[in-house]
Amino acid sequence: MITGKNYIGNQLVSSKKTFKTFNPKNNTENPSEFFEPSSEDINKTVALASQAYYTYKNTSGAQKSNFLNAIADEILALGDELISMYTQESGLPEGRAIGERGRTMGQLRLFANLVADGSWLEASIDTAQPNREPLPKADIRKMLVPTGPVVVFGASNFPLAFSTAGGDTASALASGCPVIVKSHPMHAGTGELVSGAIIKAAQKTGMPEGVFSNLNSSGIEVGVELTKHPSVKCIVFTGSFNGGKALFDIANNRPEPIPVFAEMGSINPVVLLPEAIANNSEGLAQNLAGSIALGAGQFCTSPGLILSIKSDALNNLTQNLAKLLQDMDASCMLHPNIKRTFTKNHSDVTSQDHISVLTNSSNGVAVNFVEPQLATVQGSEFIKNPTLHKEVFGPFSLIVQCKDEQELLEVVSSLEGQLTATLMAEDKELSKYPELINHLLEKVGRLIHNGMPTGVEVCPSMQHGGPYPSTTDGRFTSVGTGAIKRFVRPLSYQNWPQDLLPEELKNDNSLGIFRLVNGTFSQDTI
Amino acid sequence: MITGKNYIGNQLVSSKKTFKTFNPKNNTENPSEFFEPSSEDINKTVALASQAYYTYKNTSGAQKSNFLNAIADEILALGDELISMYTQESGLPEGRAIGERGRTMGQLRLFANLVADGSWLEASIDTAQPNREPLPKADIRKMLVPTGPVVVFGASNFPLAFSTAGGDTASALASGCPVIVKSHPMHAGTGELVSGAIIKAAQKTGMPEGVFSNLNSSGIEVGVELTKHPSVKCIVFTGSFNGGKALFDIANNRPEPIPVFAEMGSINPVVLLPEAIANNSEGLAQNLAGSIALGAGQFCTSPGLILSIKSDALNNLTQNLAKLLQDMDASCMLHPNIKRTFTKNHSDVTSQDHISVLTNSSNGVAVNFVEPQLATVQGSEFIKNPTLHKEVFGPFSLIVQCKDEQELLEVVSSLEGQLTATLMAEDKELSKYPELINHLLEKVGRLIHNGMPTGVEVCPSMQHGGPYPSTTDGRFTSVGTGAIKRFVRPLSYQNWPQDLLPEELKNDNSLGIFRLVNGTFSQDTI
Repeated sequence: MITGKNYIGNQLVSSKKTFKTFNPKNNTENPSEFFEPSSEDINKTVALASQAYYTYKNTSGAQKSNFLNAIADEILALGDELISMYTQESGLPEGRAIGERGRTMGQLRLFANLVADGSWLEASIDTAQPNREPLPKADIRKMLVPTGPVVVFGASNFPLAFSTAGGDTASALASGCPVIVKSHPMHAGTGELVSGAIIKAAQKTGMPEGVFSNLNSSGIEVGVELTKHPSVKCIVFTGSFNGGKALFDIANNRPEPIPVFAEMGSINPVVLLPEAIANNSEGLAQNLAGSIALGAGQFCTSPGLILSIKSDALNNLTQNLAKLLQDMDASCMLHPNIKRTFTKNHSDVTSQDHISVLTNSSNGVAVNFVEPQLATVQGSEFIKNPTLHKEVFGPFSLIVQCKDEQELLEVVSSLEGQLTATLMAEDKELSKYPELINHLLEKVGRLIHNGMPTGVEVCPSMQHGGPYPSTTDGRFTSVGTGAIKRFVRPLSYQNWPQDLLPEELKNDNSLGIFRLVNGTFSQDTI
Repeated sequence: MITGKNYIGNQLVSSKKTFKTFNPKNNTENPSEFFEPSSEDINKTVALASQAYYTYKNTSGAQKSNFLNAIADEILALGDELISMYTQESGLPEGRAIGERGRTMGQLRLFANLVADGSWLEASIDTAQPNREPLPKADIRKMLVPTGPVVVFGASNFPLAFSTAGGDTASALASGCPVIVKSHPMHAGTGELVSGAIIKAAQKTGMPEGVFSNLNSSGIEVGVELTKHPSVKCIVFTGSFNGGKALFDIANNRPEPIPVFAEMGSINPVVLLPEAIANNSEGLAQNLAGSIALGAGQFCTSPGLILSIKSDALNNLTQNLAKLLQDMDASCMLHPNIKRTFTKNHSDVTSQDHISVLTNSSNGVAVNFVEPQLATVQGSEFIKNPTLHKEVFGPFSLIVQCKDEQELLEVVSSLEGQLTATLMAEDKELSKYPELINHLLEKVGRLIHNGMPTGVEVCPSMQHGGPYPSTTDGRFTSVGTGAIKRFVRPLSYQNWPQDLLPEELKNDNSLGIFRLVNGTFSQDTI
């Protein structure tokens, strides 16, 4: 049952200001009322997290692993109530809800496995050389340690996998940092259910109160207050550029600046090289159409930009793609606000000079629904018009037709930072474009050959984070095991007694982890 | 011979505005005149670095290794001219110059060794699973790649080891990033000599022009212009809080924010626990005196704060330490400005209420010379007075006497971020203070047992970088092999053809490096 209350540590707390979530499919408010926390509630939440931190940071990898696995179990135990709440609050279909729940549990178990082993802590040991000349060398040992309470902002487009118990929360908890979730206003009910699962798991596995809290919010105030709080040490956000940049500025203007990991949008250029078009025009069009329309285009890696060199073959592909998109059914967007923003941003782009719109809008599309859209422009026009470089969050892509390879290179050089770029190319064709690749990889976190950018694999080699402004910090990833690195820093112990060192740095290596010992990787004891 | 000119790539360029360096020992200007670059010069320098980047980032580890070793060779080949210029511009003794040159060359060779092997690149490979259900898994491979041109600000207190070819430059070049040095105004001559060595090494080893440039400056303008330049991708600075914070703010307010790694000052608390004092009071006093006065206290890890619990034994140690410091000779500071700032900051602290000054100043100390100083204050007064928490750069330490263990814990909790903290304690004594250690390690990058904080070992396990405001980013180190991580970010290749992958990510692992393959560390081929 939904209470609408905030989890301040293990307590459910109500307050004065209330709001409701929205069912975009029915175009109606959902019944439950949610309470937004007061400033006093926020302070109490952070104080609890801060206090929990001094215990939680010292729990072993095995204990944290149990906790994370227990969260996954408790989420599954929520059963159909969760799936039903998810679909009501997002307009997304049940299959997607079940798939995303699986991804969420998979992420929790991935981090559970990671921290059960301590190799991720980058333990490094340089043993003493007491007789070294001219000066003796001390024993120095280093490993990663957590940095303090983390605030996670739930994302609108992944009510489970990038929200309450999503990859950000999973990786922060795995690192040894308590988490305060600033729940996304659109799916506060989903958030409360999942929060209840996390609290249950924390209690069952003996974690300190305050290791997790969940605060509702209808606007920006709660998030701003949390970001300014001196005991909060890190912010994670997935959403719009304006939202992420505002938090980044607030965090940098604190007396003690703190890191903000904001994923803020990306148009994910897909470059179609001539031989690929010549050999597989229809397949390309089908794959692109599927990727553009997937989830109503509400993915961070949706292909919003298609780059190629002018040719008859490209014209054919363009017409095919337009037809495929035109023939697709409309799909429901997450919320009226998102539909409104899509309509505005799409119209901002398509109303620019020299843009050709290739798809028509039908009459009678339901109120929060949207049809996939396609437009095209010349390379020279694209380069000089910054509006065309902005993300249109939703099912839209812009085809940029370059007059030659040189102009294609100039278009690539004009791009802002992106999460991904894709090259559709025959194997041997790719090797003819070293300059293009050399420049393209400066712009992205992930470079894809012959695959659509949508679909972000959760694995150690995934980089989901690109140069600014796709994220505030392209040196980190929000997907895959690397995501844990956002919440840690190295600490050196010099001449520290064996029995007081963390397990990972003791001579006996009881955990059997990989360590750098006097500059060489090994699992050996010392 | 000193020309006073800027190295813009391989060209020596003069301009209108000039300045001279200063010999603090003689209290006279040095003869050479140095030229400060124009805005046009600065733009040209950055353009060259940017252009060089697209070639240099693709040089192999072996090539970069040759380059770094060649720099070390060329620095040694400068011979006595370098040593003599160093002492004239810093007032530091010849022995220190020779030692620091050795450290500088050692750092260059350390990074040469590091990049000759590619294991530092954190290569990670997840192979494809084409038959996975419900969706096939693509081949994804990740490694660290450089981020672009770096500006290194030379430090006043290490004319060689933290300047032109110091650890920052060595690690940035090792990472594959071109470097522009903003030469420190106090040792522009030393900078020009070392720059000449780097340029020679670059030419001998076939590196692209623009991989290194050296710009003079007498004030802040050149540094500010470089930090604002859109093609500069990273700033490294060692100096005052005000300087570092100003650059941090400029960098964060750029249209594209960039990382600033500023090391800004630290008072490096040394905690004296009771049994350690009881067992070795004289030894402690001697070690502290030596560390406080070392290099006229002009080290980032100088012990500026001594914390302990009130006792007669502490009083004895305090008196001993005061006497030892009082009896020491005055030593020359780096520059009249540094002496002036020391005098002001020392007087700011000692003029606070409830401070007892324990050392007197002698008459007739030479103009840029300084004598070591000691003062003491009660814990309760220290906690409430922020002035006492500020760094006094030079040979000064403040002893904080706490009334009990609880107050000692409160003092530790009140501290800002520090590079180091030290616990002087008997082995078994240390285990009686888990709470103190738990809190202290939140404040520091390096925790030392029974050793002085001065002396920063260059090795893989060194962490030289603590929580704000000791640095702008305590997640990174400026000393040791980890320093290279400041200049890189992860990049994923998805489904990329074998022959176009970087050597480090190919199946055959021809470099024999350690990689994470499907989640397991190995040096195997695939």
